[in-house]
Amino acid sequence: MTDRTPDPDCLFCRIVAGEIPSEQVHADDLVVAIRDIQPKAPTHVLFVSREHIASAAELSDADGPLLGRLYAAAADFARAAGIAENGYRLVTNIGTWGGQTVPHLHIHLLGGRAMTWPPG
Amino acid sequence: MTDRTPDPDCLFCRIVAGEIPSEQVHADDLVVAIRDIQPKAPTHVLFVSREHIASAAELSDADGPLLGRLYAAAADFARAAGIAENGYRLVTNIGTWGGQTVPHLHIHLLGGRAMTWPPG
Repeated sequence: MTDRTPDPDCLFCRIVAGEIPSEQVHADDLVVAIRDIQPKAPTHVLFVSREHIASAAELSDADGPLLGRLYAAAADFARAAGIAENGYRLVTNIGTWGGQTVPHLHIHLLGGRAMTWPPG
Repeated sequence: MTDRTPDPDCLFCRIVAGEIPSEQVHADDLVVAIRDIQPKAPTHVLFVSREHIASAAELSDADGPLLGRLYAAAADFARAAGIAENGYRLVTNIGTWGGQTVPHLHIHLLGGRAMTWPPG
């Protein structure tokens, strides 16, 4: 497990801290959600942990409260955005082959169109 | 929120109960992991809740213990399978446009190849 203190060089740590602007759609004490700046679906939002966690590979049972909050926030957002009834996809990338570009835990929510299979 | 009692018509309830054979790679009191029978990557495993939960849209803060266990199991599996260093992707589909085919919570782990973007 890696150090979880804020990293001044981390894009998402800086967004969470408000140092870099973003279009926030949700914020609580554990999770911030922002619109992806390169959206791949009509609705494309990132649910980001406030804590600097390198990826989902770092998570353990002790992260249950964070994950519960994150999934609850995603479900609430999808309902409010009107995309829940048709459906949507949640994705998190780990490492190079996963397609991870920012080494700070975030889960993509993509909706508003039919997603295809395989998922990349 | 929907009823979480086992559904005798649910494929994953029957797999969790051992009524339908599967290739299990992990099992604990909350989560069972099985190989996808139509793999889309060299490693493609499904982390399935024992409880009959219709999808990730049903999850709330109270599901933290389940999610913590599920993500911990996925991370442990990826390390043991030798795919963690290169990286992998976790995906869950909600509803029709999400591409959900079995209405019982499961998170796909795909690895062993470079995943592309967008994720479907």
